[in-house]
Amino acid sequence: MRTLDVGVLGATGVVGQQFVARLARHPWFRPSWLAASERSEGKAYDAVVPWRLAVPIPEGAIGRMVEACTPGRGPKVVFSALDASVAGEIEQQFAAAGHFVVSNARNFRMDPLVPLLIPEVNADHLTLLPEQQRTKGWKGAIVTNPNCSTVVLAMALAPLRAFDLQTVLVSTMQAVSGAGYPGVPSLDILGNVVPFIGGEEEKIESETQKILGKNGGRSPHSAVISAHTNRVAVVDGHTMTVSVNLGAKPGMADIVAALQSFRGRPQELDLPSAPQPPILVATEPNRPQPRLDADRGDGMAVTVGRVRPCKVTHAKFVALGHNTVRGAAGAAILNAELMAADGIFD
Amino acid sequence: MRTLDVGVLGATGVVGQQFVARLARHPWFRPSWLAASERSEGKAYDAVVPWRLAVPIPEGAIGRMVEACTPGRGPKVVFSALDASVAGEIEQQFAAAGHFVVSNARNFRMDPLVPLLIPEVNADHLTLLPEQQRTKGWKGAIVTNPNCSTVVLAMALAPLRAFDLQTVLVSTMQAVSGAGYPGVPSLDILGNVVPFIGGEEEKIESETQKILGKNGGRSPHSAVISAHTNRVAVVDGHTMTVSVNLGAKPGMADIVAALQSFRGRPQELDLPSAPQPPILVATEPNRPQPRLDADRGDGMAVTVGRVRPCKVTHAKFVALGHNTVRGAAGAAILNAELMAADGIFD
Amino acid sequence: MRTLDVGVLGATGVVGQQFVARLARHPWFRPSWLAASERSEGKAYDAVVPWRLAVPIPEGAIGRMVEACTPGRGPKVVFSALDASVAGEIEQQFAAAGHFVVSNARNFRMDPLVPLLIPEVNADHLTLLPEQQRTKGWKGAIVTNPNCSTVVLAMALAPLRAFDLQTVLVSTMQAVSGAGYPGVPSLDILGNVVPFIGGEEEKIESETQKILGKNGGRSPHSAVISAHTNRVAVVDGHTMTVSVNLGAKPGMADIVAALQSFRGRPQELDLPSAPQPPILVATEPNRPQPRLDADRGDGMAVTVGRVRPCKVTHAKFVALGHNTVRGAAGAAILNAELMAADGIFD
Amino acid sequence: MRTLDVGVLGATGVVGQQFVARLARHPWFRPSWLAASERSEGKAYDAVVPWRLAVPIPEGAIGRMVEACTPGRGPKVVFSALDASVAGEIEQQFAAAGHFVVSNARNFRMDPLVPLLIPEVNADHLTLLPEQQRTKGWKGAIVTNPNCSTVVLAMALAPLRAFDLQTVLVSTMQAVSGAGYPGVPSLDILGNVVPFIGGEEEKIESETQKILGKNGGRSPHSAVISAHTNRVAVVDGHTMTVSVNLGAKPGMADIVAALQSFRGRPQELDLPSAPQPPILVATEPNRPQPRLDADRGDGMAVTVGRVRPCKVTHAKFVALGHNTVRGAAGAAILNAELMAADGIFD
Repeated sequence: MRTLDVGVLGATGVVGQQFVARLARHPWFRPSWLAASERSEGKAYDAVVPWRLAVPIPEGAIGRMVEACTPGRGPKVVFSALDASVAGEIEQQFAAAGHFVVSNARNFRMDPLVPLLIPEVNADHLTLLPEQQRTKGWKGAIVTNPNCSTVVLAMALAPLRAFDLQTVLVSTMQAVSGAGYPGVPSLDILGNVVPFIGGEEEKIESETQKILGKNGGRSPHSAVISAHTNRVAVVDGHTMTVSVNLGAKPGMADIVAALQSFRGRPQELDLPSAPQPPILVATEPNRPQPRLDADRGDGMAVTVGRVRPCKVTHAKFVALGHNTVRGAAGAAILNAELMAADGIFD
Repeated sequence: MRTLDVGVLGATGVVGQQFVARLARHPWFRPSWLAASERSEGKAYDAVVPWRLAVPIPEGAIGRMVEACTPGRGPKVVFSALDASVAGEIEQQFAAAGHFVVSNARNFRMDPLVPLLIPEVNADHLTLLPEQQRTKGWKGAIVTNPNCSTVVLAMALAPLRAFDLQTVLVSTMQAVSGAGYPGVPSLDILGNVVPFIGGEEEKIESETQKILGKNGGRSPHSAVISAHTNRVAVVDGHTMTVSVNLGAKPGMADIVAALQSFRGRPQELDLPSAPQPPILVATEPNRPQPRLDADRGDGMAVTVGRVRPCKVTHAKFVALGHNTVRGAAGAAILNAELMAADGIFD
Repeated sequence: MRTLDVGVLGATGVVGQQFVARLARHPWFRPSWLAASERSEGKAYDAVVPWRLAVPIPEGAIGRMVEACTPGRGPKVVFSALDASVAGEIEQQFAAAGHFVVSNARNFRMDPLVPLLIPEVNADHLTLLPEQQRTKGWKGAIVTNPNCSTVVLAMALAPLRAFDLQTVLVSTMQAVSGAGYPGVPSLDILGNVVPFIGGEEEKIESETQKILGKNGGRSPHSAVISAHTNRVAVVDGHTMTVSVNLGAKPGMADIVAALQSFRGRPQELDLPSAPQPPILVATEPNRPQPRLDADRGDGMAVTVGRVRPCKVTHAKFVALGHNTVRGAAGAAILNAELMAADGIFD
Repeated sequence: MRTLDVGVLGATGVVGQQFVARLARHPWFRPSWLAASERSEGKAYDAVVPWRLAVPIPEGAIGRMVEACTPGRGPKVVFSALDASVAGEIEQQFAAAGHFVVSNARNFRMDPLVPLLIPEVNADHLTLLPEQQRTKGWKGAIVTNPNCSTVVLAMALAPLRAFDLQTVLVSTMQAVSGAGYPGVPSLDILGNVVPFIGGEEEKIESETQKILGKNGGRSPHSAVISAHTNRVAVVDGHTMTVSVNLGAKPGMADIVAALQSFRGRPQELDLPSAPQPPILVATEPNRPQPRLDADRGDGMAVTVGRVRPCKVTHAKFVALGHNTVRGAAGAAILNAELMAADGIFD
């Protein structure tokens, strides 16, 4: 694979920083174009970014001039870390101008012509792109990744579709980094739980059905899904308890085997960001835990534990993933890797 | 009500300290006898207790000599804050010796002849006592209060029995004070979630059925209950998400009304520790929260919020209670208040 | 003392809420007038306030109409919880219009004609008021309380002036509630320390010298003070390590005795909010701790511990106080109590 | 450098786990011998270790049989992660039996014949070894690394010796991982500060003088040092505020330059664990912070920030280092690297 120039829209925000950090050491993609709002335009990236990551600003981003989010400027492939308040319009303009927009924003996720992609789960949804381009009159295209909780849940559920997945009850314990910066006030979360995250339950319920569905997601999966979402005093890593009804009534060992043996196209293609394997099954009785397990597979693996019978549904378990890696920047980068491998950018 | 002398078994532990602190300002009970293990015997309470509460040691406990847990010594009514490792034998000996043991320990909770009492919910279970005394040959008796998570759940479910309660799926987020002292190591819980608490899920499932059951709990309630239990970085207050199937299919307003209008014998009798009302329904969308709501009703009220439809079951909500007050010492004291009001100690 | 009507400027902010909560149960003051910015004007207090306290909104504030901060309106005595960005102008207008403004804002603290008052420490600084009124041409007046860290330090240092206090080195560990709401982002402080609080070190150094000084603070105390300020993951309670040079070279027991026997005019007058005693000296080796000691004396006492020799200075110790009570609303209310007792409002 | 077999005494504890994890990827050392207490003897390492790190157990340690701490067994070079309660006797026996014991335990740190080594600071203290061996009659030897707070302070002070370092006042904010596992109870530290760590202040004061001293540490540095030590709710990374008197009265820029240009033998020799540079000077006003800076230099660098004048001493600053890397296992491994490079193990 020859190196491909890529850009980042919204490069100075928290998710944008994650794109910049992860792309800096990417074997295929070179982040040669960083765009942000007009007040950063023309200034050095390191002079305007309120850098919040534990790794330093990459060498390659130091001194790089930030540009405006102007369609037609920048490389053919751009990652979008834009805030939802502006992502809708800007991403559409970029797609119209011929860019492939690989977006972490929520705006187009539920658009029936836009893939809501988890490469291990629904790589076939990329077949929507020609129709998307034709219908919308775009020379480029938009591909999205799911909400940071949805991706963990959908990964864990994907192997269970084989057992006739009928109902899903999920209760999340989500990290504060999922709310961006400044995000959650410390007075709200220190020594506390906030049992509400605006819009999150609806996203988990609808996005999961689309991802697990057929026909590019236009035929949503029939599983009935109900989510409780909670914010807890964790920095990174969304943990969730899950109860599922499986019509095929598999044994617990069958469920564990299905999770452990699950593979997708990223693993087959050995994409640079692909976790091997994508789902880890913890054997210790008190795992997964966000502080110990969020970074598994360089932050791209989902860890499942405590698979056991549920008296109300059929089975229950705990699932965990890194919300700002597998749930944001890392997800989009893996999407772009699959698209690159499939020749979509050629 | 004339003042009644009471004792505390295990007075130096974390729960014992809570008994000592709450009894110090009790209008009916006077904590005149503090007992602990032999290594504290004969020493002043304040000299041996590793006091962990934010309120100071009560005046009345300062200088009071700690005695051994010897049956027959001490007042007729004793609260037990003993550890489960020793509670079984000692409580039995005290009951045999004629004491009324009002216990927070788990050992006798599931004994079919021992009331597992929440005065608002199953005050009638006290009718087990004569049979308990007869069958066991005890002159005294044992009455227990539930596990700290169970009491919150059972309180919230009690008003819903009227709607044909069929299934309950609960996922808890429990405070560290529930594990005693030293309890949970800080390395396990700082910035973390531990999705496992040994034995807790079984207790929640079985204790709740007994409490909500008939015939003194010997006919457990038929609701099928499944629990996920998690430890989070909260000091006091167990929060839980709950999904319930209700055969009568009430509207959400009916559920809220049932919760708000719920009253029990403690409220009718206006017992000193009775919260008025026992269940608060929060109207803000992001409540209850442990840091803001655990102390409601002097720690004795359960707060419910976010009552809404559930796509998988019928309704879902969040419930919260103070685990070391409503879930431990406060619960036992309320039990004793009901017993005193009913003349059981006469 | 007959009941006195008082108002609160900035009643809907975090500090304003504390005024409303504490005044609701005050024996002398009746909070009959709540003022805030124009966007709240004419609306019910409970409808506009983003209430953040663990105690509920007081009965008396529910349904009360919020008014604008218009000088001449409202009672003679008004507490100011205004943000520093607006406090300067508004407080001055109120003083000119004849109000006594008892302010928690920083704007006038270092004005040589405005008392920076801790009633136990420098009650005599109130003698500045006639000159303040004359010079500024105000019919009313302004009295301020110190920064939330300064008050803890100045209280602990006040009894040490008798030993020829020469130098003070203080390193703070401050709670997030000191920064208001939304204040400190959780991403900044969860599992972290931020060794910087803008402007705080300068305030501690200069305010303490004024408070401990003579002539109404216009002759600052000669002690040289140096502060390090840090934010830690604590909700309420500022803890600080302090090293002091004392020219009189007292023994450690002398220092402890001076702290324990310290009394001021609030204690002599037995003012409603006066902690008895104002300074507690902890004897346990690992105290004071914010979670266990911040609420001592209903949040108005300062707790000192670990008094011991310092190899570099002469003595060192730990001091702790409740930053939003003793360091904000409670401090202003105690100031007003002293002023009322002294007949200043008559 | 050819690969050298090394052993770990106390391999199953928290510090032992860090040795196993870091040695697993070491270019020179091969951890071929893991020893622990007798109850683990003969069992597979992964079967007995309560693994607490976020990285998985290394491949090479899985299935490796744990041996007893028997002198004469195991390789010539052994790292000691033993608890202080047993380290004294066992380390002495190993040294007598001809092993080079590179220890993290505190037992021999203040022995005048045992180097208390920070390779950047006092590499010359290794010249004590021949006299140690002769006097004690050991064929092997013992070399120690400092306490986890001391190493951060001593690193930051080393470059300041050139300015006539006279007094040091340090106030620490230490992470819970410094107390091992289970270590600090969560009830003690959640939302709290504990202003006391047993024995820690004495260690910081005496160890620092030895490290900065001459003649192998037998002529301690004359700087007078006073420490306040505090535990805060941080997982990894000790932060400390430091005020220093420097007789030479350098400008702040001179101090920064001295810190930044500081190099030691590990940097000259380019040892595998040597951070390049050893001291980073943060330019942001609110750094260093443990969550963002503890991992700098793979956990081996010390970060200093906020260098500014102090009104009481001459200058003040904040210093930070990773307590379980630079302050424990990483420190000992760097010590062994220097010894290997100097031919001491040959």
